[in-house]
Amino acid sequence: MTEPSFTTPTIGVFDSGFGGLTVLRALIARAPQARYAFIGDTARLPYGSKSRRTIARYAAQSARFLVEEQGADYLVIACNTASALALEDIKEAVPSVPVIGVIEPGAEAAHRASKTRDVLVIATDATVHSHAYAAACQTHGLRALEKACPLLVPLVEEGWVTPSILNEPVAAPVQPQAAVTAEVVRIYLDELTTQAASQGMKPDTLVLGCTHYPLLKPVIERVLPPGFTIIDSAESSADKLVMHLSRDLGAPPKPTPEDPILRFFATDSVEKFERLGSRFLGRPVINVQLVDLGG
Amino acid sequence: MTEPSFTTPTIGVFDSGFGGLTVLRALIARAPQARYAFIGDTARLPYGSKSRRTIARYAAQSARFLVEEQGADYLVIACNTASALALEDIKEAVPSVPVIGVIEPGAEAAHRASKTRDVLVIATDATVHSHAYAAACQTHGLRALEKACPLLVPLVEEGWVTPSILNEPVAAPVQPQAAVTAEVVRIYLDELTTQAASQGMKPDTLVLGCTHYPLLKPVIERVLPPGFTIIDSAESSADKLVMHLSRDLGAPPKPTPEDPILRFFATDSVEKFERLGSRFLGRPVINVQLVDLGG
Repeated sequence: MTEPSFTTPTIGVFDSGFGGLTVLRALIARAPQARYAFIGDTARLPYGSKSRRTIARYAAQSARFLVEEQGADYLVIACNTASALALEDIKEAVPSVPVIGVIEPGAEAAHRASKTRDVLVIATDATVHSHAYAAACQTHGLRALEKACPLLVPLVEEGWVTPSILNEPVAAPVQPQAAVTAEVVRIYLDELTTQAASQGMKPDTLVLGCTHYPLLKPVIERVLPPGFTIIDSAESSADKLVMHLSRDLGAPPKPTPEDPILRFFATDSVEKFERLGSRFLGRPVINVQLVDLGG
Repeated sequence: MTEPSFTTPTIGVFDSGFGGLTVLRALIARAPQARYAFIGDTARLPYGSKSRRTIARYAAQSARFLVEEQGADYLVIACNTASALALEDIKEAVPSVPVIGVIEPGAEAAHRASKTRDVLVIATDATVHSHAYAAACQTHGLRALEKACPLLVPLVEEGWVTPSILNEPVAAPVQPQAAVTAEVVRIYLDELTTQAASQGMKPDTLVLGCTHYPLLKPVIERVLPPGFTIIDSAESSADKLVMHLSRDLGAPPKPTPEDPILRFFATDSVEKFERLGSRFLGRPVINVQLVDLGG
């Protein structure tokens, strides 16, 4: 791995869609003066239903685009499916830069947080099927119970969350839409904690294993039994990247009052990306450029 | 078009997934002694996010498989996206057989049902974006207001419907899951009827423009204002096919006590297809064969 020779690094962030903008948001909060290039491979989502080989090929194309064409010095794979199935292939595709996925940092954070060593994980169907979180938790001596929550991504994409969840200044009264989301979260977590109890587990930590779920964190906090720690794998992977930056630059980058330098790319219609993406990033997503990565 | 020379016709049914099994279910109820071959192009779903050209190519491959390899005498396109975007391409791919989509029969049925000439349509994002129902309704002198309801497909696929919706014999008490679905339906229909009223419309007919929605019909009936007619485009397209059969065979096929002859094909993992498909078909979906239609 080559030594980085820069003071303002460029951080490439890749996702199959725009959910990974929550990872970019966490990165900007920690290293606002870095340069960022984000690509969403929206033309070919969802990755979850595709074979490992196809996902590896697609992800490697995006990784090379970020490193070779956008000059990324670091790469964050802000996509659970690609992190679960193709991290090694991506590292091979761009051997000159550090590559960080979302799963291992989430498992590490759960390891630091859990006293009982029993951990719950909620994620999409595809991520749960891969059992990547359970495997990563196991290497840290944790027992993990995973649950697929297929309704949460469409609820977030419909915007059925309370304004306070969107970090807007004034908390509005709970709308029927937000009440539905809260009830869905309650049903899923109730099923999961009941199943854990039936297996003799005493979980004290919940991992959010999907980049859409940080937008549900306030409602998840309200529904969880007391004493639970929530691990947001978007934040965990951002923490991990900042550790790399601190090591390479000698100190963590200091916040500046300036706006971060952001470039956005997508492989399909940018309209939905800009409209929904702003909600995930917590700031406007504009000037998204359409790119063609080929087949 | 060649004259059919058979007394037991084979009816090919195509969908991008397994939602089209509600169309097959409606067909079996009307023509139980026909032979059926159903293919779900599950490896390449969702079609909704793909270009018209790609959808036309995929759908034509499935159509040729049903006609050339499975001997279909009639073809039903039980996929709203393919019906909206690729019906002419499919007809060109299999010029020897009648091809029926789901959209035009739905619009025709709305035309027969509506007295006010104002019609509401609920469908997926992709179908609404195509405005295919609005266009088809317009040719019948109807004004249509369409609404995308992205949460309904995942709610049905999660099985968050009451047992009575699944036509099971005993009505169970309403579970929290079914209550969520009822509330989501109420919110969507409330938004739609409010929007219609604000445009001076007086709708009296609702078209279910997605093959998943028939499983929600009982809850939609409870939520709709009185006096509404629900058009299930799965049933409308089955009616249309039976008209073809009656014309070609001289009389509608008579029910027999025997089980229908069913063959199922899918282009990807058959497990989810069999598990969820049974719920859509109302009888077991078994012996699904994996087929490779190529790229």
